Amino acid sequence: MIFNIEEVKFNQDGLVPAIVVDNSTKDVLMMAWMNMESLKLTLEERETYFYSRSRSELWHKGATSGSTQEVVEVYYDCDGDTLLVKVHQNGSGACHTGSYSCFTNRLDAN
Amino acid sequence: MIFNIEEVKFNQDGLVPAIVVDNSTKDVLMMAWMNMESLKLTLEERETYFYSRSRSELWHKGATSGSTQEVVEVYYDCDGDTLLVKVHQNGSGACHTGSYSCFTNRLDAN
Repeated sequence: MIFNIEEVKFNQDGLVPAIVVDNSTKDVLMMAWMNMESLKLTLEERETYFYSRSRSELWHKGATSGSTQEVVEVYYDCDGDTLLVKVHQNGSGACHTGSYSCFTNRLDAN
Repeated sequence: MIFNIEEVKFNQDGLVPAIVVDNSTKDVLMMAWMNMESLKLTLEERETYFYSRSRSELWHKGATSGSTQEVVEVYYDCDGDTLLVKVHQNGSGACHTGSYSCFTNRLDAN
């Protein structure tokens, strides 16, 4: 299957940020980076794949933990340089800490 | 007022991606970049400020268009390298195209 991924602009490192949202609750679960290969796999396999900048390797989200993300829809923004991925989250959640979302820490006044 | 912004990790360019969400609908409106100064202004003024990478300048969202974003809460993720900003969106919307959200384009099979 061929998608209109020529609309997506990857940065100088060949990466694009992908915001992952729970399609049922609309909560933002995480943000990670995709390269062309991981985006193609995400669209074809209908599960999220990212590119780990720290490990310099492709990363199939939840492959070992079971917290896979089934892809519902993928959007790109007006500039084409950010993705929004709507998913069905499997397992306990999206965060490596075990949390449902990576965004649990609030910037508060001390 | 002093916030715990030492928890936030800026990249090699001194920037951090900020995902902006409508606090009432939970829709993702846009993604933009903040430097330390724009994050401090966002927290203090309770309206969003970003750093424009193309114009290399601070940018008070909606200052000319009226589409300002009133800040409700700001979160940082488990790695401290991404922000989530929950806002009340004023005006017609968040996107420079006039759309409510920047994410209107779907990656579809051709």
